[in-house]
Amino acid sequence: MPKLTVGVDIGGTKIETALVDEQGRIVASRRTDSGFGLDVDGWVAGLGRSVAELQGSAVGSEIGAIGLGFAGQIDAENGVVRESPNVGWSNVPIREKLEAALNIPAIVANDVQAATFGEWKRGAGRGIPHMVCMFVGTGIGGGLVLDGRLYRGATGNAGELGHIIIDINGPPCHCGTHGCLEAHAGGWAIALRAQEAVARDPVADGALTAVARRLHGTITAATVSEAAHQGDPLALRLVDEIGEFLVAGATSVVNAFNPRMVVLGGGVVEGLPELVGTVETGVRRQALDAATASLDIVKAELGGFAGVVGAALLARELLDGGG
Amino acid sequence: MPKLTVGVDIGGTKIETALVDEQGRIVASRRTDSGFGLDVDGWVAGLGRSVAELQGSAVGSEIGAIGLGFAGQIDAENGVVRESPNVGWSNVPIREKLEAALNIPAIVANDVQAATFGEWKRGAGRGIPHMVCMFVGTGIGGGLVLDGRLYRGATGNAGELGHIIIDINGPPCHCGTHGCLEAHAGGWAIALRAQEAVARDPVADGALTAVARRLHGTITAATVSEAAHQGDPLALRLVDEIGEFLVAGATSVVNAFNPRMVVLGGGVVEGLPELVGTVETGVRRQALDAATASLDIVKAELGGFAGVVGAALLARELLDGGG
Repeated sequence: MPKLTVGVDIGGTKIETALVDEQGRIVASRRTDSGFGLDVDGWVAGLGRSVAELQGSAVGSEIGAIGLGFAGQIDAENGVVRESPNVGWSNVPIREKLEAALNIPAIVANDVQAATFGEWKRGAGRGIPHMVCMFVGTGIGGGLVLDGRLYRGATGNAGELGHIIIDINGPPCHCGTHGCLEAHAGGWAIALRAQEAVARDPVADGALTAVARRLHGTITAATVSEAAHQGDPLALRLVDEIGEFLVAGATSVVNAFNPRMVVLGGGVVEGLPELVGTVETGVRRQALDAATASLDIVKAELGGFAGVVGAALLARELLDGGG
Repeated sequence: MPKLTVGVDIGGTKIETALVDEQGRIVASRRTDSGFGLDVDGWVAGLGRSVAELQGSAVGSEIGAIGLGFAGQIDAENGVVRESPNVGWSNVPIREKLEAALNIPAIVANDVQAATFGEWKRGAGRGIPHMVCMFVGTGIGGGLVLDGRLYRGATGNAGELGHIIIDINGPPCHCGTHGCLEAHAGGWAIALRAQEAVARDPVADGALTAVARRLHGTITAATVSEAAHQGDPLALRLVDEIGEFLVAGATSVVNAFNPRMVVLGGGVVEGLPELVGTVETGVRRQALDAATASLDIVKAELGGFAGVVGAALLARELLDGGG
């Protein structure tokens, strides 16, 4: 009986849990809207129930390992969540607790690094030894595959591509500095720019406010996508700007890393898939010729499932005796 | 008899050749002001004479290998200089030609990558598995040691840190795009900014023109260093700006790579060593806390000899059966 692995992706408002086979296919999955409990032991017990349910839906399956992807700062080597704003934890030795409670070997990873691993093993980057992922969602995160290995950096925090500075005179970022790529093209910044554009020039607002009223309550990045696809001039101008910002960030990434492939994913890219072509064209024009000669820029393939697939496949490496 | 290796650093206006022992110490060196000949075979013959002279000055030495560092685009695997503006070569299989002419095993590397290897093995970065070098000279180049290996990227061009975009609205760069770090803080850009500042406000020019007249002919980056160290207000303001630009670039690098150490070198840093402290302070303030927690930012130790030492030590890896 082939062993399955469990992947868990702990996001801001939901937890995605999936049973994944050795080909990286999802056998069963479930999504819960929030955490599993208020304290760590309650959370672990909740995750245990979720895993048991998944196992029940895949009759006769055996679970060999479990991989968790958390947003925030992770000590992958020791299996400790150093800081995860989404669950509000500091220095929680989650691997130890999980293994004690569930009696299944576990690994812990940064959620974006897990998603990058998923895209590399089973998504857009299959077989590519030098690959950079940029996930443009509410924030912007990145993951690095360098020389055929997931690269974590000196302390596990490599790939914070949202905090590359693209405009030394640019707007403040949530990270405390200013001018970061995320402060220009992350979902929260797109929403802010759109709201400011409407406030500055209400007459120009053909569709943003109407779409927001109908769909989103307030103007969000999704409002901008929707209005742009309706042909709204203000929204289209905002999308052009987002494209320029992403080109600048991706140009820096390509010149610094010389990857074979850049994979673009995340909610903003899913909502505005035309950005992939914009970034491809712009980077070919702006980055060094030597760095673009054998470069592909493509859209992520696994969508919202990259995280669970990647976490499960990272856990499978543990089963197979790998890192 | 311990074998020595030869390191060669082919710069814009000079060729530095050195005989290096297994500890990375320079046993003998010589500098020639230009190339060795007009065509490739003439160049190789000239290098052969230079190597013979060096050997003559180290009695009884045996040369085991030779390492060459070229500015430009290098195919290290095949020992080919793809494009080197300094020598004006395209697609020259220099390793093959050199081995045939001198009967010594050879390796070819990018000059900045060679200098990075030198700083890593025998300079500021000894024993550091995650190290980024930024060499701020006329241009700005970078080199990467990631997970204990010199990282070259998909096609050998990784580490072009001078072409990270720090200001999407910034001035044009020699690379064809605009807003690059090099277009703000590379030696040529510093000279240009200083010349423009003097043209814009001749009254403010207390020392730049005088220093230039006395030392450099025209205002260069060295003029700015010299005038700043004399306390000239305009030069000091320019140095403050250079510091801000380098902080922005280094912040992007630290957030993207999460290195344990950033090594700053090159002529501009040698002339203005106080920039190391400026960058250290600024990056600690601007980069993500998780990325700076165990970070050191230090000055390069090998000065202008990093290239020959690194090229020689890369060649020694060949002797020892390494990469």
